[in-house]
Amino acid sequence: MNPTITAFESSPDRGRGLARDMRVRWALEEAGQPYEVRLVSFSAMKEPAHLALHPFGQIPTYEEGDLVLFESGAIVLHIAEHHAGLLPDEANARARAIAWMFAAVNTVETPILDLQTAKFAEGNKPWAEQRLPIVMDRIRDRLKQLSARLGDTDWLDGAFSAGDLMMVGVLLRLKASGLLDECPNVAAYVARGETRPAFKRAFAAQLAVFTGQPLTS
Amino acid sequence: MNPTITAFESSPDRGRGLARDMRVRWALEEAGQPYEVRLVSFSAMKEPAHLALHPFGQIPTYEEGDLVLFESGAIVLHIAEHHAGLLPDEANARARAIAWMFAAVNTVETPILDLQTAKFAEGNKPWAEQRLPIVMDRIRDRLKQLSARLGDTDWLDGAFSAGDLMMVGVLLRLKASGLLDECPNVAAYVARGETRPAFKRAFAAQLAVFTGQPLTS
Repeated sequence: MNPTITAFESSPDRGRGLARDMRVRWALEEAGQPYEVRLVSFSAMKEPAHLALHPFGQIPTYEEGDLVLFESGAIVLHIAEHHAGLLPDEANARARAIAWMFAAVNTVETPILDLQTAKFAEGNKPWAEQRLPIVMDRIRDRLKQLSARLGDTDWLDGAFSAGDLMMVGVLLRLKASGLLDECPNVAAYVARGETRPAFKRAFAAQLAVFTGQPLTS
Repeated sequence: MNPTITAFESSPDRGRGLARDMRVRWALEEAGQPYEVRLVSFSAMKEPAHLALHPFGQIPTYEEGDLVLFESGAIVLHIAEHHAGLLPDEANARARAIAWMFAAVNTVETPILDLQTAKFAEGNKPWAEQRLPIVMDRIRDRLKQLSARLGDTDWLDGAFSAGDLMMVGVLLRLKASGLLDECPNVAAYVARGETRPAFKRAFAAQLAVFTGQPLTS
C-alpha cells in the first residue's frame, strides 16, 4: 500500500514547485517510494475532514496505513528514517543533517515567508513599497551566512541529505526575487539540487497537476 | 562528560524564558541530564569561533564530545532520542510527536516572530501602529486552530512529549501580548507546561543568568 499525500488542487505558484508538497514528493522520489496524491481545494482544506489530518488546514499531509502526519519537515524526516539515501548512517552526521532540516524551516524560511507576506498579503498596503527592502535585507543576511558556511562544497555537510533537500526546497521560493543570484555559491547549490533526477521527477509530477497534462515517462 | 550549551550572556528578554536556550534546558531537565552553559555576548556570536558552531550566529548550540548541533528543535530532538520520557515508544506516536515539533517552529512560531519584528525591529516605522493588528490577527488564526485541535486534552497527542515542549516553548513568547488569554484552553496548556518541575528548574537556571544570583537548590 503506497502512502498518500495531499497537494493543492490549484496551486497558487502555478506549478513552479514552491508549494510544500514539492519537498515531500522529492523525498519520496529520492527514496524510490511510489505514492498517491489527493488534491484538495482551498475550501476543502478548511473543512473538518482535512482539519482532522492537518490541524492548521494546510498541505501536505501524509497517510500510510494508520499513520497520519502533517508538516513537510516531519514527513520528510519520516521518509528519511525509513529509506536509505536521505540520512547518513553515522549518528553524529545524522543529527547534523536533522539540524539543517530545522534550520531550513525555522531560520531560513521565516524571513522568506515574510517576503511572500510583504509582496502578496500586504502588497496593497500603504507601507508595502517602503517595507519591502527591509524584508529583503533580512533574507540577504541569512543568505550571506549560509553562503559562508557552504563555501565551495557541494552540500551542507558531506553527502546530499534530507537537510539539503529541505534547504533547497525552501530556497526555491527565492528564485523569482533575484536574491539567490547575489550569492553565487548558494544559487549553484540550489541548481545542484534541481538537477537531481529525483527532483526532476517530483517537479514534473507537481507541474502536471497545474497543466492538467498527465505524465508520460 | 556533560553536554555544553550556549545561551545569551545578556538575554534581551530579561530572564523571562523566551530565548531558545530555554527549550533545550527544559528538555535536558526532563531527561535528567546535567549540562554546562557557556554564555556568549552579542558580539561574540558573530565571531568565527561561534559561527563555526552556529552558522547563523545564534544561540543555543549543543556540544557533546565530537558532536556539535545548532537549532533548538534539532537539539531537543537529539536529547529526546537519547533519553526516555520525551518521545513515545510506539513508532506512529513518535512520528506524530515530531510533527508537532516541526509545527511549533515552522507553522506557529513564524507569525509569532513577526510580532517581535513588528513591535521591536519595526516599532519606530511609520506603519508600525497600522500593521500590528494584522500581525496579531495572523497569530489569532493559528491559536484558534491549535485550540480546536487541543480541545479539552492536557497535551497535543497523548502523554507529554517533545512536541508539547517545543509548542509551549514557542507559545511562551505570546504571554505579554494577551493573545493566549483569548484561547483559554491554550493558555491552560501553556500553564500546564510551566508547572512541570523540569520546566521550573530550567526557568530558574536561565533567570539566574539574568539576575546574577547563583541557584541555591
